[in-house]
Amino acid sequence: MRLSTRNIISINDLSKKDVLNILQTAESFKEISERPIKKVPTLRGKTVVNCFFEDSTRTRLSFEIAEKRLSADTVNISKSGSAMQKGENLIDTMKNIEAMKPDIVVIRHSISGAPQMIADSIDSHVINAGDGIHEHPTQALLDLMTIKEVKNRIQGLTVAIVGDILHSRVARSNILLMHKMGINVIVSGPKTLIPPGIENLGARVCYNLKEIIPTLDVLMLLRIQRERADENLFPNLREYSRYFGVNEEMLKQAREDLTIMHPGPVNRGVEITPEVADGPRSVILNQVTNGVAVRMALLYLLIGEGSGE
Amino acid sequence: MRLSTRNIISINDLSKKDVLNILQTAESFKEISERPIKKVPTLRGKTVVNCFFEDSTRTRLSFEIAEKRLSADTVNISKSGSAMQKGENLIDTMKNIEAMKPDIVVIRHSISGAPQMIADSIDSHVINAGDGIHEHPTQALLDLMTIKEVKNRIQGLTVAIVGDILHSRVARSNILLMHKMGINVIVSGPKTLIPPGIENLGARVCYNLKEIIPTLDVLMLLRIQRERADENLFPNLREYSRYFGVNEEMLKQAREDLTIMHPGPVNRGVEITPEVADGPRSVILNQVTNGVAVRMALLYLLIGEGSGE
Amino acid sequence: MRLSTRNIISINDLSKKDVLNILQTAESFKEISERPIKKVPTLRGKTVVNCFFEDSTRTRLSFEIAEKRLSADTVNISKSGSAMQKGENLIDTMKNIEAMKPDIVVIRHSISGAPQMIADSIDSHVINAGDGIHEHPTQALLDLMTIKEVKNRIQGLTVAIVGDILHSRVARSNILLMHKMGINVIVSGPKTLIPPGIENLGARVCYNLKEIIPTLDVLMLLRIQRERADENLFPNLREYSRYFGVNEEMLKQAREDLTIMHPGPVNRGVEITPEVADGPRSVILNQVTNGVAVRMALLYLLIGEGSGE
Repeated sequence: MRLSTRNIISINDLSKKDVLNILQTAESFKEISERPIKKVPTLRGKTVVNCFFEDSTRTRLSFEIAEKRLSADTVNISKSGSAMQKGENLIDTMKNIEAMKPDIVVIRHSISGAPQMIADSIDSHVINAGDGIHEHPTQALLDLMTIKEVKNRIQGLTVAIVGDILHSRVARSNILLMHKMGINVIVSGPKTLIPPGIENLGARVCYNLKEIIPTLDVLMLLRIQRERADENLFPNLREYSRYFGVNEEMLKQAREDLTIMHPGPVNRGVEITPEVADGPRSVILNQVTNGVAVRMALLYLLIGEGSGE
Repeated sequence: MRLSTRNIISINDLSKKDVLNILQTAESFKEISERPIKKVPTLRGKTVVNCFFEDSTRTRLSFEIAEKRLSADTVNISKSGSAMQKGENLIDTMKNIEAMKPDIVVIRHSISGAPQMIADSIDSHVINAGDGIHEHPTQALLDLMTIKEVKNRIQGLTVAIVGDILHSRVARSNILLMHKMGINVIVSGPKTLIPPGIENLGARVCYNLKEIIPTLDVLMLLRIQRERADENLFPNLREYSRYFGVNEEMLKQAREDLTIMHPGPVNRGVEITPEVADGPRSVILNQVTNGVAVRMALLYLLIGEGSGE
Repeated sequence: MRLSTRNIISINDLSKKDVLNILQTAESFKEISERPIKKVPTLRGKTVVNCFFEDSTRTRLSFEIAEKRLSADTVNISKSGSAMQKGENLIDTMKNIEAMKPDIVVIRHSISGAPQMIADSIDSHVINAGDGIHEHPTQALLDLMTIKEVKNRIQGLTVAIVGDILHSRVARSNILLMHKMGINVIVSGPKTLIPPGIENLGARVCYNLKEIIPTLDVLMLLRIQRERADENLFPNLREYSRYFGVNEEMLKQAREDLTIMHPGPVNRGVEITPEVADGPRSVILNQVTNGVAVRMALLYLLIGEGSGE
């Protein structure tokens, strides 16, 4: 079944039906990565260009592995070594890449909105692999897949997202996606890191994390950047950790089946203690595994057989 | 049909017959990149090592996509992260690479003559992907392919190459190739950027661009480097642009069917206005598309079935 | 035949039978790189992640070519551009990679012991591609393969390893491997660069290189780092060269069939003169060629058909 969009820039591009289609496809692709021969010929002869203009290991690797397991041809460009260092503008760079006839380009960029601008300028399909503080839709989709896998349902769950909501593209995409799919989303964190008006995206705000813990099905922690303390957005990591760091003690108030998530990389001892990160509630590594499956699903749905390409 | 050379270092390596052979092969390969499955098994089991000792996006990508569409195995090395940083000399690095039995090595290097030196030292085939201010033969071939595509002929055309001829390997290779193929080549630019004796390569010099515009079939603009102004080779970019920047106004004197070319990356507003770069006369992106086809052709002719390897 | 180990971290992981198995497999794989079609489907659908957290050209290229000639899917990560720059710890990075279901990870790391720590934390197979001053087992195996190829035997040979034994992972792995296989190993070099107790690994020490030259079947030179002179470990490169640099003059005392080896990159004129490095006794480039074959063998034996994976 085709998606209703030809690009994955924002969660807003996807209908509820698209989301269910992506999850179902990802679930069926997940098994490929468990086989002795982890490869299907689905995208043989398709060209994927991974443009990571901002550094990344896990997301780039996840896309690249997904592409190769589908037999696509992949080429990578990174910030360094690119013509953009010669002062070429982004759209010219992308139009040049497009002239080489890729089927899809995957873009990570530090500027919010760059992937949309690119999608508006070229004919190839575009997947946003994270843009500035805007969105990271494939992360939200893999998070949702993980939630569904653990909870066996989506609608009506209560999920808290905790941390630097203001600067987090992961939070933004997750709030939009969860709200769309009928999840009750609560955001929590220092007041300075919760953007005003976040309720308009479909999230409730609660500054006191301890208060909401007992009500949660899922607790999703975000990486806190040391740099934010330097910007005086909170006093220091220790102070942050005291109110929003999750440890075993705090989880005594939680439901038996509370699930802990984190998009990584984890700051052990800051937003989460090692015991919790590695404990039985944590599905942090399942998220990573599902990332490959979700990306395989998106590539297949956009440029595979059923896509009409 | 085999080429008369086993390496593509300079346009001088190629006979007129070789050039026609390359263009014809490229024309037939171009269609592969338009297919839903953009891949043929032509170079399966061949190993190509792309050595980009100087930064590049489009040329490296173009080669890599060409190699993958022909099913070759490709590995890349770049300046950073190479043993050359440990002080190993270039020939030792290349002899080591050769000991791993590549079929072909593609070299970009900031030193003029490096690819020739390498070709003299190793048995693998060598393609020069741009060396210092010496040559960039695959660029010239893709330019010629584009000209032939648009004009449906080569012999007798009049082409101007405008800009920093002195430092341009693109200009050098194009002058040699066009002259070989019976094109009338005129070079233009600030006097300080036209090398003395350029006529010996087969080009006529005209410092007044406006004067020659009406006579041209093709106008090829070169990227002007801001750094050259710092070297006092011309006053500043604005001054350059006033005499050699191409805009709609200047093109009023041009023939209806004048074609605009540029090897990229384009300095919009300096050597060319955005209106002209994106206008109907421009074949800038066709050049990029043809780059993949020309590189596929060269790889095939050097190490494919008919090559005797 | 399976190996008795699932990881290749140290030569100590390998039994004598394993070593002979690896050499025999490598010898049979070597021929693949000589074919017109250098590719077998042996590892189709296997995922190999090459983690070169320390710079390398030849070893990374050798692994990547070996993987591709066996049809594995390969992805690379390097130091720069990795999440480790965001302060993630190594084990978290590797657990994330493992969650993407690679079959094998190849690790180069500047910290001695890092690959062992990784192997203890993840389920994928691990190959050590060089860790700090600890070990470089694939180098020792390719060196042994080269020795066997030239001498047609192993047991009872006499090999000297000369240079900075103290900081050399190549020396360590070679001493362990040669001693295991019944080779008489002598180490030589400035006293400050021979670690006390090296005899316990199975090597004899002789500070006077000239004295032992006539007794040798193989003379293996190590790269000397200019930086060691700055650390006052020897006066300067010239002084080093005078006592331990190998030249034609010194080799007049050598046996007719003395073989010269060097793991590269070579400091021409320091530990070895160009005449000797490029002379008839030198098998330096054979070592590189055998590196691809040995790495193919290891990949095959760990995750190929016969491995039980």
